[in-house]
Amino acid sequence: MASDLPILKPGSTLGILGGGQLGRMLALAAARFGLHCHVFSPEKDSCAFEVAREKTCASYEDEAELTRFANRCDIITFEFENVPAETADFLVTNKKPVLPDPAILATTQDRLAEKHFLTDFEIKTAPYAEIGSDVDISVATVQVPTPAVMKTRRLGYDGKGQAIVPLDGDPSTAWKAIGEVPAILEGFVNFDLELSVVAARGRDGTFVAFEPVENVHRDHILYQSIVPATITPALAKEAVGITRKIADELNYVGVLAVEMFVVPTNGKHELLVNEIAPRVHNSGHWTIDGANVSQFEQHVRAIAGWPLVRPRRLGLVEMTNLIGSEVEGWKRYIAQANTAVHIYGKGEPRPGRKMGHVTKVTPED
Amino acid sequence: MASDLPILKPGSTLGILGGGQLGRMLALAAARFGLHCHVFSPEKDSCAFEVAREKTCASYEDEAELTRFANRCDIITFEFENVPAETADFLVTNKKPVLPDPAILATTQDRLAEKHFLTDFEIKTAPYAEIGSDVDISVATVQVPTPAVMKTRRLGYDGKGQAIVPLDGDPSTAWKAIGEVPAILEGFVNFDLELSVVAARGRDGTFVAFEPVENVHRDHILYQSIVPATITPALAKEAVGITRKIADELNYVGVLAVEMFVVPTNGKHELLVNEIAPRVHNSGHWTIDGANVSQFEQHVRAIAGWPLVRPRRLGLVEMTNLIGSEVEGWKRYIAQANTAVHIYGKGEPRPGRKMGHVTKVTPED
Repeated sequence: MASDLPILKPGSTLGILGGGQLGRMLALAAARFGLHCHVFSPEKDSCAFEVAREKTCASYEDEAELTRFANRCDIITFEFENVPAETADFLVTNKKPVLPDPAILATTQDRLAEKHFLTDFEIKTAPYAEIGSDVDISVATVQVPTPAVMKTRRLGYDGKGQAIVPLDGDPSTAWKAIGEVPAILEGFVNFDLELSVVAARGRDGTFVAFEPVENVHRDHILYQSIVPATITPALAKEAVGITRKIADELNYVGVLAVEMFVVPTNGKHELLVNEIAPRVHNSGHWTIDGANVSQFEQHVRAIAGWPLVRPRRLGLVEMTNLIGSEVEGWKRYIAQANTAVHIYGKGEPRPGRKMGHVTKVTPED
Repeated sequence: MASDLPILKPGSTLGILGGGQLGRMLALAAARFGLHCHVFSPEKDSCAFEVAREKTCASYEDEAELTRFANRCDIITFEFENVPAETADFLVTNKKPVLPDPAILATTQDRLAEKHFLTDFEIKTAPYAEIGSDVDISVATVQVPTPAVMKTRRLGYDGKGQAIVPLDGDPSTAWKAIGEVPAILEGFVNFDLELSVVAARGRDGTFVAFEPVENVHRDHILYQSIVPATITPALAKEAVGITRKIADELNYVGVLAVEMFVVPTNGKHELLVNEIAPRVHNSGHWTIDGANVSQFEQHVRAIAGWPLVRPRRLGLVEMTNLIGSEVEGWKRYIAQANTAVHIYGKGEPRPGRKMGHVTKVTPED
């Protein structure tokens, strides 16, 4: 039980699985508390390496390196939710605390298991159906009207591993397009807007959420997050309530993000959960500059067993990702009032690669 | 000329001379812009090392290591103002830009030169006199009434290298106590409070200052910084004006701090400058959490040739240093509302060692 773990002390070592910008910003937040960071990542040029005291560049399957890593850490977390379940299990049996509990990954790494989990707790989602070699695909089409989207059950992100089934289209074609791997068919949702709730749950079950964020995607990649979202206080409360229910049911410890669609239904608005991210999240980056506590500090506090901070927003916030060559526009942002510029120190600005973000915080007075 | 240097780009390498908490917080601020940091420090356990991509642990006199360091940096700055002048000169002749210009160190490393500089520009200081083997010490006592304080001209900080001359005492005794090195005798100042102004000057001469800070010392070490200071707007303006004059006359680039005494004189208040710190400063730590831009980001912007940010305070601010074993009280602060906790990741909490700080920001509304 997380509540039985010793409270982490400054001077301890925090292990981070994954070396991207999330790990980098997590390490920067942990450094403020005098925590030493040890980043484990298979990629040689991981941008989190250079702000951590220790780094291990090895495959997630390398048990010798995982053991060495675990031995040098006091507590381990992850920034990358597709850490193989075997890796997480191996670390857990290695007797080093891993938070959030990697058992959660079994639910969140599998789109079908995630949908079942949500449905079990009466949380609404888009209509969905399982697709696989032992499934009659024509049944799926009955359950899920077209247009729809075929998604691999595992390892998809930023629109990867997806294929569209057009109106009256044949799901088999889409399934072939994604390689006939285990998949789910999801009905299209006519949403008014996309929300996410970034929240933290402490070891003792304390729950605090940042205000719901309105997200704008472009080419399946998050483009902008706007806070506050243009929703009613009642809907904001409902979105936070759903997130709390998910966090409680998972007995979650740390920061998580829940993505939702706001769908018009009979003149009202309904929330459908799209995805659970068991980690700090791109739509929470605004908190670094736009709130009294960042999602990264909040995550460190939660897993360390420290009290969480009640979030307070510092103004009207607009976070914009710098994707691919957009990062070359840094000079314009650096000259802009009320704008914080974050660049991740990655190498080449390849198309679709998240290179940085900017957060504009306009004081409300 | 600084204005002729190329604008620094994200992905460049910033060299930092000195590896203490100032270097650490500077490196953390630089990392947000995707700058790589290379910390040069003679101390093996420098706390700035672990948040930088590259580190060099070598003496400031090691020319081979200095050359290697300079070759790997695009621009160099310092967190430690007692970098030997020869080291700075060596780096400058090595053709790598060093900002602020190390020529300034000749003034700020020598208390006598600093006082002369201020006096030349009609900026008031405490009464002072030169002390040295070729100086008639009895003359000093005429210029500077007792009680007074004898200070080494070089390398003093946090009360080190100082001895008090009591009322009608003999300055020779105090001079012996500090080892009969070149010194200055400074008259005691009956101040109402101590201020500092932390400000930045860009390569193009742009000047922006944070609001004056009220400082409380304990055992010659900064204990608390409070913002806003309890002074009139007119006096605050005057303090900023003095700082601007100093920065302009030094043709300074980067963040500097000017410490002042507020002295009651004929029913009014007068400002006497106590010290110029050509670097980010302990009394500016509050800006990390209490302002829209930190002194560390501002310093990076200034030396990089980027636009400076007009500072805005986010509330009533109280920064408290955690000195020596006080850091063991971290748990209390971490549970306190509106309080940001910073711990520097140093080893043993020796007496007088700055181990961290906490900043309380109370919203004003």
